[in-house]
Amino acid sequence: MADRNQKLADLGEDALVKKLVKDLKTRSDVAVAAGDDCAVIRRGKRGHYLLLKTDCVIEGVHYAADTPPSGVGYKALARAISDIAAMAGQPQHALITLILPAERSVSYARAIYRGLSRAAKKHDIAIVGGETACPAKGGNALISVTLTGSVTTNHCCLRSGGRPGDVLFVTGKLGGSLKGHHLRFEPRVTQAAWLARNSKPRAMMDLSDGLASDLPRLALASDCGYRIDVQALPCRRGHSITQALHDGEDYELLLAVPARNVAALTRNWNKRFPALPLSKIGELTKPGINEPLLAGGWQHF
Amino acid sequence: MADRNQKLADLGEDALVKKLVKDLKTRSDVAVAAGDDCAVIRRGKRGHYLLLKTDCVIEGVHYAADTPPSGVGYKALARAISDIAAMAGQPQHALITLILPAERSVSYARAIYRGLSRAAKKHDIAIVGGETACPAKGGNALISVTLTGSVTTNHCCLRSGGRPGDVLFVTGKLGGSLKGHHLRFEPRVTQAAWLARNSKPRAMMDLSDGLASDLPRLALASDCGYRIDVQALPCRRGHSITQALHDGEDYELLLAVPARNVAALTRNWNKRFPALPLSKIGELTKPGINEPLLAGGWQHF
Repeated sequence: MADRNQKLADLGEDALVKKLVKDLKTRSDVAVAAGDDCAVIRRGKRGHYLLLKTDCVIEGVHYAADTPPSGVGYKALARAISDIAAMAGQPQHALITLILPAERSVSYARAIYRGLSRAAKKHDIAIVGGETACPAKGGNALISVTLTGSVTTNHCCLRSGGRPGDVLFVTGKLGGSLKGHHLRFEPRVTQAAWLARNSKPRAMMDLSDGLASDLPRLALASDCGYRIDVQALPCRRGHSITQALHDGEDYELLLAVPARNVAALTRNWNKRFPALPLSKIGELTKPGINEPLLAGGWQHF
Repeated sequence: MADRNQKLADLGEDALVKKLVKDLKTRSDVAVAAGDDCAVIRRGKRGHYLLLKTDCVIEGVHYAADTPPSGVGYKALARAISDIAAMAGQPQHALITLILPAERSVSYARAIYRGLSRAAKKHDIAIVGGETACPAKGGNALISVTLTGSVTTNHCCLRSGGRPGDVLFVTGKLGGSLKGHHLRFEPRVTQAAWLARNSKPRAMMDLSDGLASDLPRLALASDCGYRIDVQALPCRRGHSITQALHDGEDYELLLAVPARNVAALTRNWNKRFPALPLSKIGELTKPGINEPLLAGGWQHF
């Protein structure tokens, strides 16, 4: 077998996932399986999809050991909320897996839960279960979150619906998230639901690994290329275009809107969300055009 | 704060979970939150509950590093299936979080997925998403599984419905699971659904931490005591009563059946499942009676 000696580090995350999921069986009630921000299930309240998302943060990978634990808890849940938002869904129920070394204090564990609870309360999420466990000797802390959501079937936004000519927008500012934004960002639940109702994005996702990684994913899922104006990127104050492209952890929305809806979108957005920028950064194109060619961003392996 | 210097190791798992979940907000659609085998949500197809479960296995804790990876994958999903079965539910959709050191081979990751896929196919489960990530330096492999299920509202079995006088049964044999059973057990989905329809257990759970830990949990949730005949425990061949009580990882069902249903249950069970023993081991009692007093079994901290 050719895989026998190949290491995960040599293959890369996207290629690994592709290999792992290619032979999986599906069910007739699955609308979207692996590959989008959430799984989408045709089940649940009539006229609604059930959304399912799992996401984990690892100490020493996604946050430093000296990060305040309530910030870590907030981040762990808010990341998953951001993925539910990316499909224009409302988050509902969370399960929390908390892996902590046995020598940690009880107050550390409780502070993580305070952060989780803060994110949950803001979005009317019930934490309905989970588990606690101890890592193997020497292992680090880890928080894994599963979150369910609900979205009406005619508002659900996938990554795959974009078409050449659709205009690309991002919310908020990009870059430099690790200076603090990654512990206190506001998942764009309200904005995404408003966008789905008002400007009918054909494709949407949240920016977690950096625009340079995430835009090519959206374009590929939509069988499109892209052309962006990097000068138009909304860089966070004091940060460069390179940082806006590659830092990651922005947790903003990237969306592709039919050109005919753009004028009304810009006008209405500024009335509805005056404090949050919505920046036009480029457009989807025919496949094969990728200007500038983006690569990089966060890779797990 | 009194927790400031208290270590998780000093508190124990059940007490920690109690502290962590006590201030959580709930939602009106949550029927059962943390504390039972699964969370139970009043949502989904009319007349059905949505069941949610998350569970993880950690290398060096739940399995040895030299365990065949397809067995590890099978076990990781089958454990969650066993929890859905414990509520008499049918498993449906799974999310998989696979944490593997970057120096592992691609074939190792694929073998884990073969095991997951084998468990999924047997029970008509679709693996609909998840993620892969790398642990912090020196960290071990970990697989976290989230599984949804569905159960008709009138067949859902909780831990908390038992009453004094209900007769306690266990399926299968107990003890010595780590010699191999823990990598190839059959979650009792069919049996649990049959039991719910035919003998109306008032309380049910799956045995994962050992009868000595799990029976007191069921009794406490039902506000009962218990009286069991340890000589009646169905010990796996070559294993002692102590092992049947404490080894854990049996993944059998423990159930409390109204006394009036016992004669019919025993008769019909043997016709329907002739190859699988169903053993009467005792009864639930008024609270305060715990004979013999059981303690121990697996504790994570």
